[in-house]
Amino acid sequence: MSFTRCATASAVLVPVCLSLSKSKAKSLLLASSGVANSQCTTARAGSVSVKVPLFKDNMYVTEERGSLYAPDYRVYFRDESGPISPLHDIPLWADEAQRLVNMVVEVPRWSNAKMEISLGEPLNPIKQDVKKGALRFVSNVFPHHGYIWNYGALPQTWENPHHVDPQTQARGDNDPVDVLEIGRRVARRGDVVPVRLLGALALIDEGETDWKLIAVDARDEDAARLRDVRDVDALMPGLLRATVEWFRLYKVPDGKPPNQFAFDGEAKDAAFAYKVVDEVHGFWRGLVRGEAGDAAGAISLANVSVEGSAARVDRAEAAALLARAPPLGAALPPPPHVDRCHFVANL
Amino acid sequence: MSFTRCATASAVLVPVCLSLSKSKAKSLLLASSGVANSQCTTARAGSVSVKVPLFKDNMYVTEERGSLYAPDYRVYFRDESGPISPLHDIPLWADEAQRLVNMVVEVPRWSNAKMEISLGEPLNPIKQDVKKGALRFVSNVFPHHGYIWNYGALPQTWENPHHVDPQTQARGDNDPVDVLEIGRRVARRGDVVPVRLLGALALIDEGETDWKLIAVDARDEDAARLRDVRDVDALMPGLLRATVEWFRLYKVPDGKPPNQFAFDGEAKDAAFAYKVVDEVHGFWRGLVRGEAGDAAGAISLANVSVEGSAARVDRAEAAALLARAPPLGAALPPPPHVDRCHFVANL
Repeated sequence: MSFTRCATASAVLVPVCLSLSKSKAKSLLLASSGVANSQCTTARAGSVSVKVPLFKDNMYVTEERGSLYAPDYRVYFRDESGPISPLHDIPLWADEAQRLVNMVVEVPRWSNAKMEISLGEPLNPIKQDVKKGALRFVSNVFPHHGYIWNYGALPQTWENPHHVDPQTQARGDNDPVDVLEIGRRVARRGDVVPVRLLGALALIDEGETDWKLIAVDARDEDAARLRDVRDVDALMPGLLRATVEWFRLYKVPDGKPPNQFAFDGEAKDAAFAYKVVDEVHGFWRGLVRGEAGDAAGAISLANVSVEGSAARVDRAEAAALLARAPPLGAALPPPPHVDRCHFVANL
Repeated sequence: MSFTRCATASAVLVPVCLSLSKSKAKSLLLASSGVANSQCTTARAGSVSVKVPLFKDNMYVTEERGSLYAPDYRVYFRDESGPISPLHDIPLWADEAQRLVNMVVEVPRWSNAKMEISLGEPLNPIKQDVKKGALRFVSNVFPHHGYIWNYGALPQTWENPHHVDPQTQARGDNDPVDVLEIGRRVARRGDVVPVRLLGALALIDEGETDWKLIAVDARDEDAARLRDVRDVDALMPGLLRATVEWFRLYKVPDGKPPNQFAFDGEAKDAAFAYKVVDEVHGFWRGLVRGEAGDAAGAISLANVSVEGSAARVDRAEAAALLARAPPLGAALPPPPHVDRCHFVANL
């Protein structure tokens, strides 16, 4: 088999999950199939010629369990050898030379269900957040519909709750760092997307620092023109201001006070965002090495690939963990209140 | 059989489509099932007690043909006796005493496919508009996602292209009059919704008057507080301004100039909206009576219920017309460009 590379200089040549059987692959949901043609390679095996995507995200597939919009809903991740933890086993860097990081999409743009990587459960599947016994959906605050970007997290990062940020004077929020992906495509839940970081907003949420990194899908048509946060304002005027407003107000319909931002809501630049990533990646390294002490709390560190991790499990054990999850069920209808728009002057 | 009425004074007592066989009813999509419990009656037949919705819209069901997002896609309408024309056979008035009119939903809120009642085809099914050979999807102009209200038309109305409006000095646009329904619920394509009119905006589109009536679902939780256009500004601040901006800009990403409004984009009040309705209902009456001459153009007047209409067909013929439509096919994926957001300063 030989690979012919297309004209995307920054692309990384990676084969697709060839070890998955055809029937197995069919029964799973392919993550990130929406790759533009220009970002493909042509693989030739004898007389068969097929296009295969370039980026590593296509090595991952998701497996849904339980019922969408029910408490048992989970999205597990697999690579070509079986189940993995998206938090610990997907590398932070999609292409370190190009400074591209992997983003795990938890909430596609224009949807409301607050899905997130579960820290506490083995293999850290995506599940819907629960508050006061109810599955969480973010409110629509007019003029916005649900989340206004693809929302997710960077793997192999952790905002250490024992660390007080010297700039924001607030502690980490005990989660992987959040990312807002502003590209054209509406991603799918569980997509693993190579992104370039453009900037960072410092949300202060009930006294905790909650960095919101701004990023663009490296495969986006505009990615070459988006290199830093100032390019966002030039190319997508109004988006940064709307983003600050969105986070300020999104919990207000639920009876919470408006959120605050450090730095007067000004976005920090790309270099700053990469420094945040280096820091939270370091916190994650300490976490998986067992150096975080009590701070690690109830975080499941189970992984299949992290060198030197005491929580590393073999592939058979990871497969057994996933086998215990409930079977896939029919999706439930979302509750009718998810349709509603809330208007600012009424908040 | 006896009907017990619930405590909704304005409600109209209408039986559901009892003549549809159970299997037939199952194979069709029920229009507007999202009716609140308080707006139901309890029907008793022997020992069986079932809740039935009150409004006439529940007498209509839709039948999809062809493939969604393909040129052959159609949504036909049926009442309890078979296929009907939504344009000619659904009465304008849902409850004339309460001044509630029926609205046929063509485009649900937050969707992009420009679906509309086909004037030219027999039985006037909903189909997707085609422009320059391509199925039409409206662009997302940031911060908006698709249409920002449930969008549709009033049955038994027609904006006569031979009539010059004395106020706007522009001709009618040869369509049933458009309605924007601003209630909480995201409606479904083909729903027939009883609405109260609140106001009217006079869009001038390439020299034609294109009234956009503002309305609220009479079953909405806020309907009692929404009586006129000033209530919209009080209860949903920003919505009217956003509506004008939306129509001004929505064709700009397609290379068209911004649209204009008569009356400086000020919305006329509810009384004015009802006057527009009386007028366009009158034009429709002339149309079905064959009095519109050349103006009727290629409009199909086929109907099953309009008294004195030369184009009235019997039920068997209507059924034969629908039988000729292609079978229901699998939906196609919408084209990727539908995901994209356009930013005003780049227009």
